[in-house]
Amino acid sequence: MTDKVVIIGGGAAGPKTAAKLRRQDPEIKIDLYTQEEIISYSACGLPYYIENIIQSPDTLILRTPEDFQKQNIEVHIKQRCLKVNTEEKTVLLEDLISDNKYEVNYDVLVIATGAVPIIPNIANIDLKNIFTLRTIQDGIAIKEKMQTSKKAVLLGGGYISIELMEALVQNNINVTLIERNSQILKMFDEDFSQMVTDYMIGRNPGQVSIYTNEEVVAFTGNESGEVSKVITASGKEIETDFVILGTGVRPNTDFLEGTGIKLSINNSIKVDKTLKTSKQGIYAVGDCTDNYNLVTNRYTWVPMGSTANKEGRCAAINIAGGSCFFDGILNSTITKYFNLTISIIGISYREATELGFQPEFAIVTKRDKAGYMPNTGTMTLKLIVDKNTQTILGIQGIGEGDVNQRINTVIPAILSKTKLESFMNLDLPYSPPYSPAIDPVLNAAQIIYHKING
Amino acid sequence: MTDKVVIIGGGAAGPKTAAKLRRQDPEIKIDLYTQEEIISYSACGLPYYIENIIQSPDTLILRTPEDFQKQNIEVHIKQRCLKVNTEEKTVLLEDLISDNKYEVNYDVLVIATGAVPIIPNIANIDLKNIFTLRTIQDGIAIKEKMQTSKKAVLLGGGYISIELMEALVQNNINVTLIERNSQILKMFDEDFSQMVTDYMIGRNPGQVSIYTNEEVVAFTGNESGEVSKVITASGKEIETDFVILGTGVRPNTDFLEGTGIKLSINNSIKVDKTLKTSKQGIYAVGDCTDNYNLVTNRYTWVPMGSTANKEGRCAAINIAGGSCFFDGILNSTITKYFNLTISIIGISYREATELGFQPEFAIVTKRDKAGYMPNTGTMTLKLIVDKNTQTILGIQGIGEGDVNQRINTVIPAILSKTKLESFMNLDLPYSPPYSPAIDPVLNAAQIIYHKING
Repeated sequence: MTDKVVIIGGGAAGPKTAAKLRRQDPEIKIDLYTQEEIISYSACGLPYYIENIIQSPDTLILRTPEDFQKQNIEVHIKQRCLKVNTEEKTVLLEDLISDNKYEVNYDVLVIATGAVPIIPNIANIDLKNIFTLRTIQDGIAIKEKMQTSKKAVLLGGGYISIELMEALVQNNINVTLIERNSQILKMFDEDFSQMVTDYMIGRNPGQVSIYTNEEVVAFTGNESGEVSKVITASGKEIETDFVILGTGVRPNTDFLEGTGIKLSINNSIKVDKTLKTSKQGIYAVGDCTDNYNLVTNRYTWVPMGSTANKEGRCAAINIAGGSCFFDGILNSTITKYFNLTISIIGISYREATELGFQPEFAIVTKRDKAGYMPNTGTMTLKLIVDKNTQTILGIQGIGEGDVNQRINTVIPAILSKTKLESFMNLDLPYSPPYSPAIDPVLNAAQIIYHKING
Repeated sequence: MTDKVVIIGGGAAGPKTAAKLRRQDPEIKIDLYTQEEIISYSACGLPYYIENIIQSPDTLILRTPEDFQKQNIEVHIKQRCLKVNTEEKTVLLEDLISDNKYEVNYDVLVIATGAVPIIPNIANIDLKNIFTLRTIQDGIAIKEKMQTSKKAVLLGGGYISIELMEALVQNNINVTLIERNSQILKMFDEDFSQMVTDYMIGRNPGQVSIYTNEEVVAFTGNESGEVSKVITASGKEIETDFVILGTGVRPNTDFLEGTGIKLSINNSIKVDKTLKTSKQGIYAVGDCTDNYNLVTNRYTWVPMGSTANKEGRCAAINIAGGSCFFDGILNSTITKYFNLTISIIGISYREATELGFQPEFAIVTKRDKAGYMPNTGTMTLKLIVDKNTQTILGIQGIGEGDVNQRINTVIPAILSKTKLESFMNLDLPYSPPYSPAIDPVLNAAQIIYHKING
């Protein structure tokens, strides 16, 4: 019988688990420990707070410890988990205010410790005004520094840097993005990555610089210990007022060393479809867990707020004695740069080739509404199909038009391995304000079908 | 061997067949006959022309006879088909300019004669300024009359009347809609129909009246023979400057009587998945054909421009010796009334019950983006699932938020009969400008799953 549930981690997955578990079971004892001061917030909203689309960071907070208290969920802030003893069923915690250490026992433990930024090994990385963006405090610090700055450097060309680029450009900062790979957004095919690069530079020429194949080797600082220059391997010296490291994250699982809890790719926690770890009575949810990719049928690690919420919900149902299976993910991601929507689902053509599929693709550039309607937007879609099974492996979409509608239309077809022949005549609803008579995504499917089958 | 293809009908399906066939086969002889003067136009765009969102009717024309001539496709306008002789493989045509009748032979005949408005049996329906809206000429006549009018009456509460209501309200006309059923939009459940009614009346109180359960029994006219009043069975007398009949359409197939070409529901033409009719060498495409409903597994008749285009494309491939199957439709429709998107896919809860399914449903009202983002819109979704198979039967969506994205996400899942348990954890891409962390459509799926499985 489960009497006492201990949840470690206060980002998205932990609080979601707590809230859902309380709805499933009004009696069970729930304690949530987090090393942060703020819990249950949307980290994905931080770039929009920095941009000033959202004025107060409080807006990003879904529930406070007091809200949880009312539901009889005890939230303990500023408490870091140091160790898990799976034999004794205890966790060792450290009170970050008093430095006291103490043990707490559990019947069920939920690990929801999320991910932490990867700090690259670069000379003088400890200088002031070199930020990462993960917590609300990080966001507040960056926004404050931005107000008095003119120049910034972003390290890494992932979604977070794209979103921060928008935030900074909108606030009149000159921004240099430095990516050590040959392209930004490395999950995309090269052609689509280049389209984003061109759009970003073209939108604000002179204000935005993007360097690829470029490694940062050192920072230099001024007499106050603040970063003032970024030095690259090719000899560039870029003056800057601050730096944001968008150089990736890793699962926050170091404290599990020696517990016997099985780890997976990138040291994420191995979980089954019910979110159970390898140790009895211990669940893991959110950014600290591995993910099963339903397209490649391989384990992967894709930390996403939406997955964290679904996993938290599912784990809570299982802890309460119900049955919920989280089958896996499709690598679905989306972001925007001003009016440009940028999205990829499944795998790219390059990845499909690397993984041994026999991919075929079609690229279409189309308007999102009937051509004669006002305010149409264009989009470019790249649909990727496996020639052997004639099922969809992925889609990339970029454009000022309604990309996300098309992307979303493909996702259930990827999940269900719908045959291309059925998909290309899919009965999507047609009306001039919503789409052309034959939707762009069906155009792409028809082209591939023709390529494969003549 | 196919030497000569004759296509009858110049709306959407006929010209699409001709254009695609020419791409498939550069040599084949193609002749297209239409009783209209204008071919290859988007009838769906006519309400937006009347509203004045589109200024010129020419904008709605995709291709002119001259465009077709350049592709070596002969277009013969103002030629009405009177008879088909399936034994001799000839069609009897009437030249509407000279009244001459003549025969043309074919190797392959494509019937694409579309649909025509149903003219209800109401006293004095021949009065001036009682319009239907089907052709570009109809649209021009309505728009012209609207310029000098103050009051209008719309008969019928289908999509066309909703779209015309917007056009007329936007042009400062006082509009009365009269529907003889107990609700407008009869394919929707009553609750969703009522939401649309409330929105329409609430948006322009005093300017919009909607009467249901109301039958028009007569029109009265002035001394110039123009309609001036609409008389209803309940005794209402509604003054008006013009009337538009949105009382439905029927397949334009009367001329096929006695040919032995098998007809189907509502006298639409029975076609197989390759768009062949029951007579060798004769295809039919577009609004004049029946449709297979993949949700109910029954034949139905749902004339849609998108289906017409897909069927035309598919028939052309088959005529040219290729292989294309058009499996069927999902009853997918969408329209808008100003900012309100209105859509239904599959079947309603009521229809599901009538057809013997064991339906369960969930209604959710949610914002379309993360709650803290600006410019969020709300939407109400009603998802309907069959309890026995736990697959989705339909979805209705109404709202100022991004309804169509959610609707489109459900469609491939209906097609592929995706299990609710898989669908409710579908990996939809999440970013605050595009959706909440758990998308509204997944919320709805989770609620139904919980209702059915506890």
